[in-house]
Amino acid sequence: MTQHKHPFDSALEFRHENGRVFGQTSAAYANMIGPFGGMTAAAMLKAILDHPDVLGEPITLTVNFAAGVKDGEFELEAKPERTNRSTQHWYVRMVQEGEVVTTATAVFSTRRETWGATDMSSPHLPAEAAPVSTEMMPRWAQNYTFRMEGEMRDKIKDAQPNAETLQSIQDKPPRPLDFPSLTAMADVFPPRIMIRRAQFAPMGTVAFTVYFHVDSATLSQHGDGELIGHARANRYYNRYFDQSAELWTPDGVLFATSTQIVYFKE
Amino acid sequence: MTQHKHPFDSALEFRHENGRVFGQTSAAYANMIGPFGGMTAAAMLKAILDHPDVLGEPITLTVNFAAGVKDGEFELEAKPERTNRSTQHWYVRMVQEGEVVTTATAVFSTRRETWGATDMSSPHLPAEAAPVSTEMMPRWAQNYTFRMEGEMRDKIKDAQPNAETLQSIQDKPPRPLDFPSLTAMADVFPPRIMIRRAQFAPMGTVAFTVYFHVDSATLSQHGDGELIGHARANRYYNRYFDQSAELWTPDGVLFATSTQIVYFKE
Repeated sequence: MTQHKHPFDSALEFRHENGRVFGQTSAAYANMIGPFGGMTAAAMLKAILDHPDVLGEPITLTVNFAAGVKDGEFELEAKPERTNRSTQHWYVRMVQEGEVVTTATAVFSTRRETWGATDMSSPHLPAEAAPVSTEMMPRWAQNYTFRMEGEMRDKIKDAQPNAETLQSIQDKPPRPLDFPSLTAMADVFPPRIMIRRAQFAPMGTVAFTVYFHVDSATLSQHGDGELIGHARANRYYNRYFDQSAELWTPDGVLFATSTQIVYFKE
Repeated sequence: MTQHKHPFDSALEFRHENGRVFGQTSAAYANMIGPFGGMTAAAMLKAILDHPDVLGEPITLTVNFAAGVKDGEFELEAKPERTNRSTQHWYVRMVQEGEVVTTATAVFSTRRETWGATDMSSPHLPAEAAPVSTEMMPRWAQNYTFRMEGEMRDKIKDAQPNAETLQSIQDKPPRPLDFPSLTAMADVFPPRIMIRRAQFAPMGTVAFTVYFHVDSATLSQHGDGELIGHARANRYYNRYFDQSAELWTPDGVLFATSTQIVYFKE
């Protein structure tokens, strides 16, 4: 019996060689040009998770998309810049042909049970939300199931007064949620300017930040079920706009908040 | 006639020595322990702004507070990791006694006039908002004027169902707004957990991100007038919580959005 590897795991298979770490872009997660940014972000995080000196679990990751990642091999250089008793600060560089194409900083920490609360209201995805066709979307989107209600699907065909959307997100085929996949899911939301203006222009994320509000034990309990993603934009100004998003469990537990700032050409 | 330097400018006076850059923490911007994080963030940004190779204007800055900054001298190492035609990606380290205490990444870019819009609704600070006493606040807060309406001032005395606040922010004495001061202002909001629970516990920001939605010409036009700051928390979970904030002009122009993730001990 052959156990097929999930394409997400295949995309994050690294080769370790004399303390150096090499990865390969994955055709299954190709974007219109180069790889899906969420997968690049997941690779930056995995370089830390795989590092022998890692301490604790991810609290935050910021990825800077410094240049287009070319299809093919890349090297990942992860360096713990500072290790404290319970927190660790990382700097990661993705290098291709001797040039830096992506950088990232991350904070890891041990978790401890404390008082907790959620100030943000959880969104409600109506039961009639149905899978969206990903046929017209880039290759990477074929590895996800997105459900949206009909009104929302119609909304994104025309220019809108704002770019807020609500949808489900799940790996296709389903795959147990972990920190790399949660990171990638925080980047599945189409650039808000496409929804706002219902027209295409060259664009690309320049920086992306995720805050993790979950530990690995809770991710394991969640398993491979879908998450609910809520996204919106704040301001579009002279070549850049920012968007923010949250990832919730269907029963209203906030797993991650994220922001990104995106270049656009008019 | 003596022209007194603004304490904010004195705090950001760097010494350049054989291509190395040194700064000094400022007693005027002291926090309970060490310097005000907003001033540390401003110093990280200014290290880039002062760099001979800088291209364009700040689009985003992420600061990682890796360890407590000690009062006294620090060195700033700013490195352009990647320079493209119109964007530049930076990595900055603040070092004290040979150890990294703060890291930052930033994206700079040339701006060009494009289509623009603001999806987020601008908040309204009622006219009766009056200056808040900063007497009980840390030393750095004495360099700001904060106005809040009475209901909001009362609200923060007791535990709350959420940590949302609205206030004005202005340098005291007034000082023309620039990118470093805008950065510091994005970090003046008290940790949301203090408002939510109305009790004090050891806490500290571990990472802070600012998105700039303004260029230097617009900042100059704004001058030294106040900004309106709107802040809230999202989730408090096992030692960390995140908060987000926006800085608006009084007439509703969004200058900056920011997020931070904060450690707390219960």
